[in-house]
Amino acid sequence: MITPFEFNNDDTLILLDQRRLPWEEKYVACRTAEGVARAIREMVVRGAPAIGIAAALGLYLGVKDYQGEEEGFFRLLEEKKKLLSTTRPTAVNLFWALNRMERVALDSPLPVKKIKERLRVEALKIWEEDVEANKRIGLTGASLFSRACRVLTHCNAGALATGGYGTALGVIRALHERGMVEMVLVDETRPLLQGSRLTAWELCQEGIPHILITDNMAGHFMARGMVDAVIVGADRIASNGDVANKIGTFSLAVLAHRHRIPFYVAAPLSTLDLDLSSGEEIPIEERCEDEVTTLAGKRLCPKETQAFNPAFDVTPGELVTAIVTEKGVAQSPYPTSLKNLVEKRS
Amino acid sequence: MITPFEFNNDDTLILLDQRRLPWEEKYVACRTAEGVARAIREMVVRGAPAIGIAAALGLYLGVKDYQGEEEGFFRLLEEKKKLLSTTRPTAVNLFWALNRMERVALDSPLPVKKIKERLRVEALKIWEEDVEANKRIGLTGASLFSRACRVLTHCNAGALATGGYGTALGVIRALHERGMVEMVLVDETRPLLQGSRLTAWELCQEGIPHILITDNMAGHFMARGMVDAVIVGADRIASNGDVANKIGTFSLAVLAHRHRIPFYVAAPLSTLDLDLSSGEEIPIEERCEDEVTTLAGKRLCPKETQAFNPAFDVTPGELVTAIVTEKGVAQSPYPTSLKNLVEKRS
Repeated sequence: MITPFEFNNDDTLILLDQRRLPWEEKYVACRTAEGVARAIREMVVRGAPAIGIAAALGLYLGVKDYQGEEEGFFRLLEEKKKLLSTTRPTAVNLFWALNRMERVALDSPLPVKKIKERLRVEALKIWEEDVEANKRIGLTGASLFSRACRVLTHCNAGALATGGYGTALGVIRALHERGMVEMVLVDETRPLLQGSRLTAWELCQEGIPHILITDNMAGHFMARGMVDAVIVGADRIASNGDVANKIGTFSLAVLAHRHRIPFYVAAPLSTLDLDLSSGEEIPIEERCEDEVTTLAGKRLCPKETQAFNPAFDVTPGELVTAIVTEKGVAQSPYPTSLKNLVEKRS
Repeated sequence: MITPFEFNNDDTLILLDQRRLPWEEKYVACRTAEGVARAIREMVVRGAPAIGIAAALGLYLGVKDYQGEEEGFFRLLEEKKKLLSTTRPTAVNLFWALNRMERVALDSPLPVKKIKERLRVEALKIWEEDVEANKRIGLTGASLFSRACRVLTHCNAGALATGGYGTALGVIRALHERGMVEMVLVDETRPLLQGSRLTAWELCQEGIPHILITDNMAGHFMARGMVDAVIVGADRIASNGDVANKIGTFSLAVLAHRHRIPFYVAAPLSTLDLDLSSGEEIPIEERCEDEVTTLAGKRLCPKETQAFNPAFDVTPGELVTAIVTEKGVAQSPYPTSLKNLVEKRS
């Protein structure tokens, strides 16, 4: 199984460097919270669920060598949590995972040594649960399809973006296992090309038929009747079903709506942020303009030209046909359907 | 004034090599129809009006050294016309210009030497008229705006795509001359980056404020209220107002429609193809997949991954707020408004 990282018995987090795919499979070893924070910020590891897991492991790495009293331990925990939570602002899984880790520490009236052990176990549990959630998302998402189909996906919501298996690509994997994938249209996903670099790489590994397109071609192929469904992941979902995801997702949803093509979002419940009433409240990360103006070391525009680089956009819930989670499918009206899913016994 | 080419007294067509912009200003000299055909095919020169003018000059170059009888001359003319007309299929200006040249030759009961002279004059007239048309389009288009605005444009419909001045960028130039351009949002326009390479270069030359975005960001900025109008060029316009233009144009029109943002197409009447009842009849060029899978000599995806590469898409007339031509503005219903424009005395 493809995974974005491994975690060794000697407490080293080995990250597959996703900036270098598909050209080379290089690994970055992290032994500290600082190392993990840097890797998240620089997108060695990316994808909402994956950065949640990496941050949880990073938080453990940040406190595991502490030897003093309880008070100092919690100060350190708070400090490392803050460090890790300021790496990227949009994906809520990061904060969700760090809060879950913190809660475990606070809920344990135990010696520091035992708390550290519990944090290690919890981080690995977050990872394990994510893989399990993805597999359920895959099965549930696949059951929405009744025949072989051509699906379009954006960015990478695959094994590399999660603990393994993937959300949107998890559904595609499950469909492929049933022989129901006719073709995956892969948006290249400018500026960082997670589609052409990562999604295409995963699909090659699995032998799933796919074809690469530039982001601006999606509408053309929808108009030509060549897309049966769009399926994407999510970085944060507000209580009304508004979805923050990689820049370009919103345009796809508008185009799918015009062509009456189902638009599915696949995400674990850790991506939900029911504290937010709408997507307007989701902070959108602005990244360095060099990502737009430069590619493979080559400047693409005149040196005087500046660029915008919002990394995400918000798709209104009204354009989302269904949100597929590990506890089932939510549909409009989302304020109730999402709440019900969260409260449902698994 | 920026122009995509010069034509010397010694009958050499000097083309600014648009593949190398903005990195270097290199020129390609063409002295034969074959050379011009290659330059059009390889996109040394591109843009619907510009390739029409280049083809007209290329046709003259293809026959200018002929010394025999009239019958052989017309055979040669036909042969060179065929060569030039098979370079690119979508932009109708190419066929329009070649047909106009042929008509001039056929309508002249003159010695071959005189016909050749008339062809030279006609090709230069096509060029001159195009620049004149662009300036009128600029003025007419600018008059549609009542206050300073932020406009979004796609690909390059500028001086480089025409005889000079530009269609969509002609309108933006005219607006800028009136101090009415707050900001131009420039779609980078994958795969060949005519936006980041050519449009940004032209806007830099003129000192027009602009900002580069990836194609998939346009919807996000529309949703944020940062786009007052979209203005693009065209490669072919059917009688019902359907517009073939650079891939990605259709998506912009759908997004503009959702956000009630005016979507303007600026094009000379030579871009109209009233023989076609709808855009479905417009042939869409499929270009080499390398343009999508490779950039600046670097492969962007796994070597097994294949790509689609349609160079154009079709925007239905219903999504076009107005078509701005040198004879005025056409609006829905296009079948009558476009016909009226063509028949109008200039």
